[in-house]
Amino acid sequence: MTTKRLISEIHKKKSFLCIGLDVDLKKIPSFLLEKEDPIFEFNKAIIDATHHLCVAYKPNTAFYEAYGLKGWKALQRTIEYLNEKHPEIFTIADAKRGDIGNTSTMYAKAFFEDLAFDSVTVAPYMGKDSVEPFLAFENKHTILLALTSNKGAFDFQTKEIENKEVYKHVLETSKSWHNSQNLMYVVGATKAEFLADIRKIIPNNFLLVPGVGAQGGNLQEVCTYGMNDSVGLLINSSRGIIYASDGNDFAQAAAMKALELQQQMEIEL
Amino acid sequence: MTTKRLISEIHKKKSFLCIGLDVDLKKIPSFLLEKEDPIFEFNKAIIDATHHLCVAYKPNTAFYEAYGLKGWKALQRTIEYLNEKHPEIFTIADAKRGDIGNTSTMYAKAFFEDLAFDSVTVAPYMGKDSVEPFLAFENKHTILLALTSNKGAFDFQTKEIENKEVYKHVLETSKSWHNSQNLMYVVGATKAEFLADIRKIIPNNFLLVPGVGAQGGNLQEVCTYGMNDSVGLLINSSRGIIYASDGNDFAQAAAMKALELQQQMEIEL
Repeated sequence: MTTKRLISEIHKKKSFLCIGLDVDLKKIPSFLLEKEDPIFEFNKAIIDATHHLCVAYKPNTAFYEAYGLKGWKALQRTIEYLNEKHPEIFTIADAKRGDIGNTSTMYAKAFFEDLAFDSVTVAPYMGKDSVEPFLAFENKHTILLALTSNKGAFDFQTKEIENKEVYKHVLETSKSWHNSQNLMYVVGATKAEFLADIRKIIPNNFLLVPGVGAQGGNLQEVCTYGMNDSVGLLINSSRGIIYASDGNDFAQAAAMKALELQQQMEIEL
Repeated sequence: MTTKRLISEIHKKKSFLCIGLDVDLKKIPSFLLEKEDPIFEFNKAIIDATHHLCVAYKPNTAFYEAYGLKGWKALQRTIEYLNEKHPEIFTIADAKRGDIGNTSTMYAKAFFEDLAFDSVTVAPYMGKDSVEPFLAFENKHTILLALTSNKGAFDFQTKEIENKEVYKHVLETSKSWHNSQNLMYVVGATKAEFLADIRKIIPNNFLLVPGVGAQGGNLQEVCTYGMNDSVGLLINSSRGIIYASDGNDFAQAAAMKALELQQQMEIEL
């Protein structure tokens, strides 16, 4: 999907919500466990109930890999369902990959070609030649970890190299990489006050912002400091939406939570 | 597998060789492509021909994910074959994962429980709470990226925070994490001169050293600077061994290359 199309969908739906599909079999309604593919059935119900309220879905690959072959198959069915029924949706493989060049190319093929996601999250630790192979794919987006929403972000990301935090070096350095126009960045909502500085470095790129809701981030603050002329934000909520109820009404409950966020977003647009 | 068992195998086989199973369908002998599961057949032939010369195998997950469900199945069959036929072999899922706590737990389950690998490679960018979930598994090993073998290592890893390189901060900080005795580290052979300094920080942990062979690293130098009283080294070669020939003799050719390396290692032990 082009960035232009994504922006147009945001304005059409008055939403920049991304829903994280982190399916834990211990948390989904128990009646689904009797189905042949409970993970896909759960995702399908959530997608059917919420697709008009969000512009993106973000399956986290860990939750699929943990269930082995069955999990990978559920991931494949989920992305196929999205691409077939909802081509207007921006899809994110939250995989946090990154390896030496020829290996990153294989990861890029896995997520951009085999699974046909629009984007994938990538870790920056191994530098330029670990990220550029992802950037080479046209109309595909590489979402680089910059400042994450967890406590461990303070272990290395916020430490200073020549009076500037590591994550700012990541932002600045990545701007010089080939096809850097295909970059988006992960910036945690739990660190909204950092967003003003981040926007000085990357005014135009989209930010994927996890941490609103369950992790305590504030939507309004994120918008104040992070929004740009093209909106430039995808705000993710996973557990807060998909586990809103563990009863038969889980999909409707998820839709209610998504609607709440969409309405808050509409005010900010 | 316990570290003790690994060390004992190294002395028994007079080898600390790890063979990387990075199977690219474009590079394997064409007659294998007619088989139902060419990736597994290739791995099985390589394992059968080389298992007495090495102590570890390291499938890189990118090369399996790129082939979707079939690839993941081949990975599963490969680790099952290793665990069943060669329980003396140390197995490494080269996956370079890492995410917020509950997600890292799911990755750990994927590789330590579902696939039953002995170890997995993990990226440090997200800090303590992204790595500790892996460390909680008994007799399983978390191989943390410290200084990688690629050019991009100089983008962030070697930059200085308070007069000390980022990768040294990773080494030092990780020592304080819960169950840090389960840590090993990735240190590229292309940067062998850094090993003396690294050993000052982590004298006891095992190092997984990629980059010997195809990437230009020197085995003898790595041993001079990196070996400790318990050997403490696993030296990986992937392409240099598994693609030694693309003919019918590919497995024997791989064994010849593995034997060369094993003989060089025997001298160093």
